[in-house]
Amino acid sequence: MTYCVGVLLKDGIVLASDSRTHAGVDNFATTVFERPGDRAIVLLSSGNLAGTQAVVSVLKQRGEAQGDDITSIWSARTMFDVAGIVSDAVRHVERRDAKHVATSARPFNASFIIGGQIKGEPLRLFRTFAEGNFIEASADTPFFQTGEAKYGKPIIDRVITPSTTLTDAMKCVLVSFDSTMRSNLSVGMPIDMVCCERDSLMLNGRHRFEPGDAYFNSLSKHWSEGVRDVFRRLPDVPAPQALPLSPDPRSPPAREPRH
Amino acid sequence: MTYCVGVLLKDGIVLASDSRTHAGVDNFATTVFERPGDRAIVLLSSGNLAGTQAVVSVLKQRGEAQGDDITSIWSARTMFDVAGIVSDAVRHVERRDAKHVATSARPFNASFIIGGQIKGEPLRLFRTFAEGNFIEASADTPFFQTGEAKYGKPIIDRVITPSTTLTDAMKCVLVSFDSTMRSNLSVGMPIDMVCCERDSLMLNGRHRFEPGDAYFNSLSKHWSEGVRDVFRRLPDVPAPQALPLSPDPRSPPAREPRH
Repeated sequence: MTYCVGVLLKDGIVLASDSRTHAGVDNFATTVFERPGDRAIVLLSSGNLAGTQAVVSVLKQRGEAQGDDITSIWSARTMFDVAGIVSDAVRHVERRDAKHVATSARPFNASFIIGGQIKGEPLRLFRTFAEGNFIEASADTPFFQTGEAKYGKPIIDRVITPSTTLTDAMKCVLVSFDSTMRSNLSVGMPIDMVCCERDSLMLNGRHRFEPGDAYFNSLSKHWSEGVRDVFRRLPDVPAPQALPLSPDPRSPPAREPRH
Repeated sequence: MTYCVGVLLKDGIVLASDSRTHAGVDNFATTVFERPGDRAIVLLSSGNLAGTQAVVSVLKQRGEAQGDDITSIWSARTMFDVAGIVSDAVRHVERRDAKHVATSARPFNASFIIGGQIKGEPLRLFRTFAEGNFIEASADTPFFQTGEAKYGKPIIDRVITPSTTLTDAMKCVLVSFDSTMRSNLSVGMPIDMVCCERDSLMLNGRHRFEPGDAYFNSLSKHWSEGVRDVFRRLPDVPAPQALPLSPDPRSPPAREPRH
C-alpha cells in the first residue's frame, strides 16, 4: 500500500510518499520534472503499480520527444496544463489496460498528486482521481492525500495551515507517516520527501528516510513518548449520569439464569 | 457515518459509538441486554441504518419470546452463542432485504461489535462482518472498530494494551472519537459509552456525551494543545543528503522556456 501526501503552503510545497515496498525499494512513487529557473514539478503516484508505472513512463517518453509537444510536461505552460497532461496519460493507459484487468484482484487504478511551479505562475498543487478528473488545492484545502490516507490525517488536520513553515510541514508529514506505518504495516520505509520553496523554481531539498534512519527514529520516539505523556495528563472521565436507556426498557424482568 | 469501538481489558470492557446523526439523535448505535448478576451484553451497530435497525429489532423480538428460545440473547449460554445469534439475525435480514437494495446507493450492510459477559464465562468481545461471520478479540488484538475506523486508530494503537485501566481506556476511546470527528464531519456527537467491569455481570457506567459536553470539550482542548506542544518540541528535519534521483536522470538538458 502506498501513502502519498502533498502540502501547499505560503512558503512552498512539501510532497512525500513511501516506497512501493511490495514491489521492491526501487519503485519510488515520486517522479521529478525539474529544470532549475524554469520549472520544478513533482508527481506522487498511488494505485496499482502496473498502472502508475505505465502512466509515468508515458509521461517521461512524451517528455523526451523534441519540439513543442503539447503532451510534454517539459513544454506545458501552466500547472493546470500539467495536471491535464497527467490526466490524459492516465486515460490513455486506462483505455489500453482497464478492460484486461477489470476482473483481476488488482484492477486499473492510478491517482496522482502533482505539485510544483512553472515560471510566470504561482506554486500549485493538484490531485487526480482514477477516472482522470482532478482538483486543485486552495487555502481552505491546503493538502491532498492518496492511498492509505486516513490514519495520518488527524495530525495534518491539527497542524497544517497555509502559514505553516516548510520545516514544520516536513515534520508534520513525517509524523503522519509514522502514525500510518504503525496502523498499517504495508505502508513502510523508505520515505521519499521533496521540498520546493515558493518562486525558487527548483527543488530545495530531497530527503530519503531509509529503515533505521536516526532522525526518523528520534522523531518517532519523541512523538510517541510526548503523545503518551499528554494522554496521561488528560482529565479523567467524570462519574456517569443516570441515563434513561440503562437498563434497556425492553429487557424482561430479572429472573434466574437457566442452565 | 457511524464509528464504533470496543476494547477488551483485563479489568473489563469499554464500548462506544456515535449517534446516527443523519438519522436523528434518537438512533443510537448501542443496544444493551442486561440482567444484573446473570449477563451484561452490549451491541454496537454500524452500516446501513435500515439493516442494523432490522437486525436489532429481530434480536429484541426474539428476546421477548418466552421459553428457552435458542435464538434469544437472554437465554444464550455463552458469548460465542450470542455472536452466533447476532450473525443469524444479520443473515435473516440480509435474505429478506439484500436483493431489493443491492443496486441502491445504500446496499445491505450491517456490522456489530458485541461485548460482555455471561455468568460462568469470562468477559468476551466479538466483531461480526456484513456476511455474518465473526471474529473474537484476544490479548494480541484487544480492540475492534467498525464504521469510520481509521482516523481514530493511531491513538488506540499507541495506548491500549490488555493491562490498560478502564479509566484510561475510556479517555483513549474519547480521544479516538475526537480525532475521528475532526477528520470526518459526518461522525458526530452525541457519543454513547458503556463500561463493564470484569465479573460484575452488570453495566458499571453509561455515559452520553452531548454536543457541548463540558468534560469532552475540556478533554478535546487539552489533547489538542498537548499534541501541538509535543509537535513544536520535535527535532527539525536535518539538511538533505545528496540523492542520485535528483535531478531526474531522464530530464532533458536545461533550455530556455518557450512561451
